[in-house]
Amino acid sequence: MLLYHGARPNPRAVRMFMLEKGMSIPMRDLDIDKGENREPEFVARNPSGQVPVLELDDGFWLAESGAIFQYLEEIHPEPALIGSTAQERAETRMWQRRVERRITEPLYAAFHYGKGLSMYQERMVVLPECVPSLVKLMHDGMRWLDSVMTERSTIVPQRFTVADIVLYTAVDFGDGVGLGIPEDLNTLRNWRTEISWRPSAKTSLHPRSSETGMRY
Amino acid sequence: MLLYHGARPNPRAVRMFMLEKGMSIPMRDLDIDKGENREPEFVARNPSGQVPVLELDDGFWLAESGAIFQYLEEIHPEPALIGSTAQERAETRMWQRRVERRITEPLYAAFHYGKGLSMYQERMVVLPECVPSLVKLMHDGMRWLDSVMTERSTIVPQRFTVADIVLYTAVDFGDGVGLGIPEDLNTLRNWRTEISWRPSAKTSLHPRSSETGMRY
Repeated sequence: MLLYHGARPNPRAVRMFMLEKGMSIPMRDLDIDKGENREPEFVARNPSGQVPVLELDDGFWLAESGAIFQYLEEIHPEPALIGSTAQERAETRMWQRRVERRITEPLYAAFHYGKGLSMYQERMVVLPECVPSLVKLMHDGMRWLDSVMTERSTIVPQRFTVADIVLYTAVDFGDGVGLGIPEDLNTLRNWRTEISWRPSAKTSLHPRSSETGMRY
Repeated sequence: MLLYHGARPNPRAVRMFMLEKGMSIPMRDLDIDKGENREPEFVARNPSGQVPVLELDDGFWLAESGAIFQYLEEIHPEPALIGSTAQERAETRMWQRRVERRITEPLYAAFHYGKGLSMYQERMVVLPECVPSLVKLMHDGMRWLDSVMTERSTIVPQRFTVADIVLYTAVDFGDGVGLGIPEDLNTLRNWRTEISWRPSAKTSLHPRSSETGMRY
């Protein structure tokens, strides 16, 4: 297998996921700022033109981080980051989806249409007039999650899961682009601090092999 | 098990999924227009306040249609609507996610903030100023999918999957609220016509037990 990645939070989430599982997969680092993921030969194989992409042994290109997490869990079940039973997996997928819809999607959209506008307007339909509303939507989602996460330290009760990875890599990125967690959301801020102590959280947006322990 | 549903496209997608599998699950129909899914006792068990919800035998409430599809596939694998192998499942999840992100999510948002505004402004953060841009985004996604789907009749090549169900129920709903497929997208319009011939597509937004063959 070969992981095409780059300096973006979703590829980082996949790296963090692999570190939690102790998996090592060769990686190829693309320069996203320069648009290496928009080159014709890349888009021909991933029509969404995004990273991460996991190339499987038969040459199949698997895009979408959510699909990559599930695939890696299936071929390398332990430690479970989605779940060990159908019901555990269902619960994790439910929380992951809630987190994506209410927090990470508006966060990434606010970045693409806001701070990232000059880069992304060449690559996608952009909605710059919606940025203030998207930030409001993201804050509403964060406030909601903060309110339902009292009395637990992980998004899925009592289990560290991919939902924590998806949100952690998003808010860590958000912090650097003016889209952080509001100061008064103590539950969510404490959750973030606790996740940051995990060795896998030491991955950065700009990975070096000494950080990740993976081959390039 | 018990499925809480209502007259909305995502519950319809779950019903269509069950019909394809020949599954019969008791259902309880909520009046979404009246907000039965926003009553305190419902929100206490599903803090997102949405349908569908699948109540499992031990009383656990599973929300989010994407998580429900996966759970039903795990407990009732045949016929496979996600996939029979890890790679098939991965491919389906990739396409489902692309369809959601580029088409169904902007479509539902454009409905919630547009035609559905008077209802939804009481229930969620709404972004009415973004409706024209969301329609543009949705059309861009439809145009993209139309361009990559030439030479195949299903979203995942050569297999009818949950990705078809997710998109079909969305565009069928969209048609009724002024968010249809543009006239010039022949590939996508032909795809839709072909899906509409499946017996499972005879489910409607307002199900009657004679239509679905399921108990209430």
